[in-house]
Amino acid sequence: MERNEKMAESSSESSTSDNVVWHSGSVDRSTRERQLGQVAGTVWFTGLSGSGKSTVAVEVERQLAAAGRLCYRLDGDNLRHGLNGDLGFSEADRGENIRRTGEVCRLLVDAGIIVLASFVSPFRADRDQVRAMHRSASMPFFEVYVEVPLEVAESRDPKGLYRKARAGEIRGFTGIDQPYEMPESPELVVHTATCSVEESAAMVITLLEGQGILGKG
Amino acid sequence: MERNEKMAESSSESSTSDNVVWHSGSVDRSTRERQLGQVAGTVWFTGLSGSGKSTVAVEVERQLAAAGRLCYRLDGDNLRHGLNGDLGFSEADRGENIRRTGEVCRLLVDAGIIVLASFVSPFRADRDQVRAMHRSASMPFFEVYVEVPLEVAESRDPKGLYRKARAGEIRGFTGIDQPYEMPESPELVVHTATCSVEESAAMVITLLEGQGILGKG
Repeated sequence: MERNEKMAESSSESSTSDNVVWHSGSVDRSTRERQLGQVAGTVWFTGLSGSGKSTVAVEVERQLAAAGRLCYRLDGDNLRHGLNGDLGFSEADRGENIRRTGEVCRLLVDAGIIVLASFVSPFRADRDQVRAMHRSASMPFFEVYVEVPLEVAESRDPKGLYRKARAGEIRGFTGIDQPYEMPESPELVVHTATCSVEESAAMVITLLEGQGILGKG
Repeated sequence: MERNEKMAESSSESSTSDNVVWHSGSVDRSTRERQLGQVAGTVWFTGLSGSGKSTVAVEVERQLAAAGRLCYRLDGDNLRHGLNGDLGFSEADRGENIRRTGEVCRLLVDAGIIVLASFVSPFRADRDQVRAMHRSASMPFFEVYVEVPLEVAESRDPKGLYRKARAGEIRGFTGIDQPYEMPESPELVVHTATCSVEESAAMVITLLEGQGILGKG
């Protein structure tokens, strides 16, 4: 019986999701977490373009991998080359971008992975949505605000985007003609203007250790 | 310099993907594969509703997890509850469903995981598209045709979908009023009408072993 129930799949029926049933197998997230010796969750880095989100995430990943932890980095650029490649930057497309990104985080966390997601994600409502998506699945979520004065981010301007935005070649650029809504109660704030990448990464790792994410060394 | 380059991220600029640059970190897929002691790739189970795709995938997952391998199962039902929950069953939505599913497979494989994907996926072009998406990223892809006579699948009818399709309550149901295009050169065919779930799963695992996916025991 159980075996037959598990045989059910959706097909190309022309209705909506009425006939769709969730399958659970004998292996679940907690099995995979035990396999990996870690607790899965998402670390969400938010901040201005040029704040150092990805740089810090790369360093956290490097250190965690060296310690045998399984991580995966997601960022807006990478996702926009694939899954979200059909989306632009309109209001509706931005919302869909966030929704899909949250779903991908959940799939990766369900797979047992520590996700390091770095997205400008300037709007509080978007970040709260991703947080809520994790909470509804009982998945750890840590918002890390990578704070830097606008003038520092602009002086770094690694891709020349601030220059283009100032010249009016890009519209709706966060910090220039689009607001960045500061996190109100992030799990962590790192200041990349005054802390090194290594120091910032160490703070993130200390946070994860304190929350029991890294399991047994 | 390198550090600054890595600081670049997409923001909410109103242009398309012109300003989007792919980031690579120091940790990549091969790092994660070494960590996990396996080679990542996708096993794509295709076949009629009720053919036993998910049942076989569950058994493969159980055995691989017991052997310490990290797998993740994807199926149409699960994805349609989340990432693809906005899609129906129109031609356009089915195409988008396949595209996103292929992208999620690629993300999971990039994360180092052995993906067990079970989708009716009745159209050859769709399966070939997912295969091509893997090939373009140099990722292993194995098409497993779970073959069963229609009458056997229909007699199992675990969710009563065949009955509904025969009664005209569901239109476009694979095998009834929509064709199933048999794979022309799948990596493996399993016959669930004559083989047990355990035997079918063993064939899949033998295939993966032969292809070096399972790494060193």
